[in-house]
Amino acid sequence: MSKAIEAHEKWRGKIETKVRADLHNAEVLALAYTPGVAEPCLEIQKNVSRSFDLTRRWNTVAVVTDGTAVLGLGDIGPEAAMPVMEGKCALFKAFADVDAIPLCLNTKDPEEIVHTIALLQGSFGGINLEDIAAPRCFEIEARLKELCDIPVFHDDQHGTAIVVLAGLTGALRLVKKDAATTKIVICGAGAAGCAVAELLLYADYSDITLVDTSGIIHRDGHYSSDRLNELAQKTNLCNIMGGLADAMVDADVFIGASAANIVTEEMVQSMANDAIVFACANPIPEIMPDAAKRAGARVVATGRSDFPNQINNVQAFPGIFRGALDVRTKDITPEMNIAASRAIASLVTDDELNEEYIMPSALDMRVPAAVAKAVIAAAEEIR
Amino acid sequence: MSKAIEAHEKWRGKIETKVRADLHNAEVLALAYTPGVAEPCLEIQKNVSRSFDLTRRWNTVAVVTDGTAVLGLGDIGPEAAMPVMEGKCALFKAFADVDAIPLCLNTKDPEEIVHTIALLQGSFGGINLEDIAAPRCFEIEARLKELCDIPVFHDDQHGTAIVVLAGLTGALRLVKKDAATTKIVICGAGAAGCAVAELLLYADYSDITLVDTSGIIHRDGHYSSDRLNELAQKTNLCNIMGGLADAMVDADVFIGASAANIVTEEMVQSMANDAIVFACANPIPEIMPDAAKRAGARVVATGRSDFPNQINNVQAFPGIFRGALDVRTKDITPEMNIAASRAIASLVTDDELNEEYIMPSALDMRVPAAVAKAVIAAAEEIR
Repeated sequence: MSKAIEAHEKWRGKIETKVRADLHNAEVLALAYTPGVAEPCLEIQKNVSRSFDLTRRWNTVAVVTDGTAVLGLGDIGPEAAMPVMEGKCALFKAFADVDAIPLCLNTKDPEEIVHTIALLQGSFGGINLEDIAAPRCFEIEARLKELCDIPVFHDDQHGTAIVVLAGLTGALRLVKKDAATTKIVICGAGAAGCAVAELLLYADYSDITLVDTSGIIHRDGHYSSDRLNELAQKTNLCNIMGGLADAMVDADVFIGASAANIVTEEMVQSMANDAIVFACANPIPEIMPDAAKRAGARVVATGRSDFPNQINNVQAFPGIFRGALDVRTKDITPEMNIAASRAIASLVTDDELNEEYIMPSALDMRVPAAVAKAVIAAAEEIR
Repeated sequence: MSKAIEAHEKWRGKIETKVRADLHNAEVLALAYTPGVAEPCLEIQKNVSRSFDLTRRWNTVAVVTDGTAVLGLGDIGPEAAMPVMEGKCALFKAFADVDAIPLCLNTKDPEEIVHTIALLQGSFGGINLEDIAAPRCFEIEARLKELCDIPVFHDDQHGTAIVVLAGLTGALRLVKKDAATTKIVICGAGAAGCAVAELLLYADYSDITLVDTSGIIHRDGHYSSDRLNELAQKTNLCNIMGGLADAMVDADVFIGASAANIVTEEMVQSMANDAIVFACANPIPEIMPDAAKRAGARVVATGRSDFPNQINNVQAFPGIFRGALDVRTKDITPEMNIAASRAIASLVTDDELNEEYIMPSALDMRVPAAVAKAVIAAAEEIR
């Protein structure tokens, strides 16, 4: 049996519940349950916002998936998605003391997913969407942001974009290149790829080219989502056509949000000097770090913990929700995401910065606190 | 500020999550999250029943309400229902180590409630329905029992029926009356009243009369639910008509699942010798214990912890689900409910049995263990 299966059989679940009141004491029981509990119920009935003081709502996030895009495994169904969702919930608690509840839905219908989450929103202080396939996830997130008065955050999009931007900030600082003139190729135009492109545009990166399985995304193409059609107008400045190899010639940065082993050494060799390669496909990157280095890349990052420069959403989502819950924001905006990115990048000092350390470790507990602080400051600026 | 509000503001939630794996350790993180977590996902995809070994599903129950019949407070909405649901979830953990998750739905449409729960069932090992108004709750439970392959239990019905039967068993043992010939009046024909009547019929009580706000339920009446129409044929042996006062003349037992203060001393005076009064309306009983005693009742029980003989669902639901989860039953049957009742009653010895101690205390930790054991034995008998 594999070590991971063995560990999961031992844990029998990576989270459980914990009681916060001593219910074995009769006096406490009479306050926490009948008859005392009637009073907080009536108080919330009069003023729903009191649910954030008198119940755990202020600290509770639903982690919701339909199990259609789990890791790189694809559509594996709600029960099979649970180990990832439980892991996510455990990370929420371990890294930012957020209580997260995993909910795996047995439907792939966007209408049903939106409706189900909207019916449940009164029990939560935030909604983290997870591993829902593109392009459905775009519509689901957009509609929920309208329907809910608690923050809705699709981690595969925005969490990824935040940590990629943080890593990119560090890497460009190291190679002394400028955001505005850096030529960036993003491979994969799914949930993560689109969100990375959008956040980079928002952060004043301008030379971005998206590539997906159909080739380079260009102005004259017709794509599966409104969002990608919009990005086609805002990216690929010279409106070039072709495949990944064409896009990568002279690129300063490659960002992979796609699939295992699709980048060759030749492609990396064709990049500009001081090339930066973020091969984030999980668990097998677009190109292995040693191959990318051999081909001349100066900075290589992956999503994996067993190589240097791990770019992992765990650096973003716990702190994002910690901040969003604490400031009780109704939305998580691009400004907050950029602030979070900068906060992550700023934890690496000039002295520490090097090819193998462009961003703090995934286990660096300064990260969630810094992210939360940045989110709160950005939210307060908007108010 | 009241003590209950103050306590709830201090707790800020009566449950939270707890992490079961040391995610601050890089090696553990690589097993619990990417890349290791892919393996349990794939294993569950191949064989869904493995979700009971590799995730917390084996021990997790959803406590679901629509907030329409919360305590005696009525339809107060999903957010206002949360203090009760959190309390329930905390009791599940404190009394039987069951992980329970409170979900309050923002809909009163039975179709939507059923559908939402059905979509969520893959994330749970059981469903505890709570505080859903009658008669909708009957249809919701019946349909969910068909749709789900995990146990579905409406606590307001069956939990109440189990503890009432347990108390009745003790009280009749004390006054030396026989189940078959005991004349019982049940006041309230909602969720609890109907379920109590049905379980008593199943347990070979035969002389039962139901009374609701329309008066005595009789064979020629037409009632709001199929269930009550059926009970009208099986109860009220002499087909008498009239009000609560008429029903109570010569009754051996009064069971209240109705509203505050609707029983007068005169009504209790009209009962048979050694009268038993279970005034279970919460928080204010149908008649206060001192008044019932003054009027001649020999045994008085209420739902409250501040009087002797507390009849409280907390004696049933934690152990019921502990047993159901441990034996992985797909249904919780009347046989299991009766076995649970007997297990509760059996914890009071002949020496201990008296007018103020007909059943164990709500805080008696022998109860959930005994109930779980009885449920498991009953489930194994059915197999």
